[in-house]
Amino acid sequence: MTAEPSGHVAIVGAGPGDPGLLTLRAHALLTDCDVVLADRLVPRAMLAGLRPGTQVVDVGKCPYGTATPQDRITALMLEHARAGRRVVRLKGGDPFVLGRGAEEAAACRAAGVAYEVVPGVTSAVAAPAVAGIPVTHRGVSQHFTVVSGHAAPGGPGCSVDWAALGRDRGTLVLLMALHHLDAITEALLAHGRAPDTPAAAVASGTTDAQRVVTASLARIAAATRAAGLAPPAVVVVGDVVAVRDALVP
Amino acid sequence: MTAEPSGHVAIVGAGPGDPGLLTLRAHALLTDCDVVLADRLVPRAMLAGLRPGTQVVDVGKCPYGTATPQDRITALMLEHARAGRRVVRLKGGDPFVLGRGAEEAAACRAAGVAYEVVPGVTSAVAAPAVAGIPVTHRGVSQHFTVVSGHAAPGGPGCSVDWAALGRDRGTLVLLMALHHLDAITEALLAHGRAPDTPAAAVASGTTDAQRVVTASLARIAAATRAAGLAPPAVVVVGDVVAVRDALVP
Repeated sequence: MTAEPSGHVAIVGAGPGDPGLLTLRAHALLTDCDVVLADRLVPRAMLAGLRPGTQVVDVGKCPYGTATPQDRITALMLEHARAGRRVVRLKGGDPFVLGRGAEEAAACRAAGVAYEVVPGVTSAVAAPAVAGIPVTHRGVSQHFTVVSGHAAPGGPGCSVDWAALGRDRGTLVLLMALHHLDAITEALLAHGRAPDTPAAAVASGTTDAQRVVTASLARIAAATRAAGLAPPAVVVVGDVVAVRDALVP
Repeated sequence: MTAEPSGHVAIVGAGPGDPGLLTLRAHALLTDCDVVLADRLVPRAMLAGLRPGTQVVDVGKCPYGTATPQDRITALMLEHARAGRRVVRLKGGDPFVLGRGAEEAAACRAAGVAYEVVPGVTSAVAAPAVAGIPVTHRGVSQHFTVVSGHAAPGGPGCSVDWAALGRDRGTLVLLMALHHLDAITEALLAHGRAPDTPAAAVASGTTDAQRVVTASLARIAAATRAAGLAPPAVVVVGDVVAVRDALVP
């Protein structure tokens, strides 16, 4: 009788897009694993230098263009680990920032599969930073809020208190917000955020394809549309956006 | 006549403490620079493998135990760069998350010194993550706020709207908050946050010295004191803290 091989899952943040922003631990795991389950937002360049024989499963898209359901991803992850394989579950940004990483960690724990979590550089901070916008700045803002703009304000699946965020005067960082940006900015304005608050949208932040659009909060949705910005994008609202003038030529 | 050598400054995030959470870009810059200006929170292990001859300046402490003033750090940074040296300004966590990185970037730009910003893994997300606490979790919280607890609520130098944060129901992540934790939790409770809201303090997060204390919001300050927790620490307030039970044995 041979012992059952022991698999392992690493739930790993790939960072915001620039392959140089991968962590040393993530790089070590990637180059010495059996299977990579990669999200849509993971830069494909990161998957080029893997050990021959490493199986790469793109769980960001199924053959018909829609995303692989979370249940299926979790099942795949556990299946590979139970077969004794070392699995890297590679997610864009940080796995615990709107990334459902904790659900996958809980599934490992419940299944008795050994796992570790490797935090990554979050695009919420890094995309603005590389575009010249600090999420905090002395005398300007000592706090920032990161929020999902995935669901329309007031619509189904929306649990975000946009009224409270409209009253807030700190930095707001909106992820996955491009599609509902009109409704989101309207909600913020309706609850007291000033129309002339500086705002910026950073698409494909930290990559060679990075594009930045700045406008007032009242005009940022129209400006991103006029510029044809496409996801992934990070939208920043707050006076820190004006700090960019001192940082970028 | 020889051309003036051209120096360069990289404002680099060292991550939360675990040397494995340094980015590939940060590692490349560190191992090929002339001078490192290192903050107090930078793990000393990261400075062990530098190229022989690299000058390391610890700007976290001066000989009498107090921190080097920001003006002096900025002046040093520019002085080395103007002498043609490649300078790495190494900061704990991410340079733009309560790290004054943008002030240093603005100083480079104003002085005509070439610079780049290398985002890091922020302890605000990573310290809770490694302790089993996701800052966001489906059905629990779709937003999180990172805030400085450095100044006492209502005291001099405090620009944080603790009343608004007390009304908020998302995840709160408090940095540098251990010293004023009694006053901060009182402010949050006075403005409506429920006393039984789960809370946790993670000291020396992601390092071998990591310690975690959990308690209700009403009791977290006393609990951290009883446990003798010391800075650096990240305090998390919100229902996501309870997710830990599904992640940690």
